[in-house]
Amino acid sequence: MNKLTPSPCELCDSAGGDTLWRDELCRVVLVGDRDYPGFCRVILNRHVSEMTDLDAATRQRLMRVVFAAEQALRQLLLPEKINLASLGNMVAHLHWHVIPRFGDDKHFPGSVWGAAHRPGTPRPIDRAALQRSLHTLLQAVAE
Amino acid sequence: MNKLTPSPCELCDSAGGDTLWRDELCRVVLVGDRDYPGFCRVILNRHVSEMTDLDAATRQRLMRVVFAAEQALRQLLLPEKINLASLGNMVAHLHWHVIPRFGDDKHFPGSVWGAAHRPGTPRPIDRAALQRSLHTLLQAVAE
Repeated sequence: MNKLTPSPCELCDSAGGDTLWRDELCRVVLVGDRDYPGFCRVILNRHVSEMTDLDAATRQRLMRVVFAAEQALRQLLLPEKINLASLGNMVAHLHWHVIPRFGDDKHFPGSVWGAAHRPGTPRPIDRAALQRSLHTLLQAVAE
Repeated sequence: MNKLTPSPCELCDSAGGDTLWRDELCRVVLVGDRDYPGFCRVILNRHVSEMTDLDAATRQRLMRVVFAAEQALRQLLLPEKINLASLGNMVAHLHWHVIPRFGDDKHFPGSVWGAAHRPGTPRPIDRAALQRSLHTLLQAVAE
C-alpha cells in the first residue's frame, strides 16, 4: 500500500479486515466484529486524514463506495438503521464505518462506541451474498 | 418543515440548533454543546432515514454541505481531527454530526459518544466567522 507517512499506521500496513472489494482508491472490508458481524469499513488506500484533504471528485468516488456498502447491507440484513462514521481519532487514515444496527443489538439505540445496553444478538453475515451484492452495486460506480 | 411521518420528530418540529445556513435541501446548525462549541449538524429538511433513501444526486448535494462544514471548522479551529457521523438511532431523520476534535477535549481519542477521559478544554467558537466561512464555501455549492 501507498505509505506516505513514516509513522506506523495499521491501515497502511494491513488490509484492516477481510477484503470484499477493492479498486485503486479504496477497499471494503468486513471488520470481523463479534457483536456486529455485518460491520464493514471502507478504507482509503492512501494515508490521508480528512475528507477535505481529498479533491471533490475523489471524495465523491469514496462516498459512492460507502453508500454501496450501506445499500448492500440494507438489502441483505434489513437493519433498523445504518450508522456511518468517519472518526479516525486513533488511526488518522481515512476509513468509514458502515454499521448495520438492530433494536436488540449490544448498544442500540446508543452508538457502538458507547456503553453496552445488553449482551446483544449478533446476526451472522452471508459473506458471499454481501460480496456479490457489493460487486454488482460497485460495477455501476466503476463505469 | 416538510413532515412526512405522523410520529413526532424533533428534527421535523424544530431547527435542531442555531441555524448558520440553510437552503431547500438542508440546514447547518450549531448544536450548542457545552463541551464542543464548534459541534455542527447538517440536517436534511425532509424526514428521511438513510442516505440510500435519497437519489445519488441529492446524496451528493448533502455531502457537499457536510464537507463545507468540515472545511469551515478546520479553517477556523485547526482541530486535531474532524469526526463525521450519521447515526440516527434515536432520531431517524437524516442528520450529520460534524465535530472538531482536539487532543485535550473531553473524550479524545474516543468518540464523543463514549466515556469521558477528562473534564475537557472547550474552545469558544466565533459564530460570525464560522457563518461567513460557511456562506462563502456554500456559495460555490449553490452555483
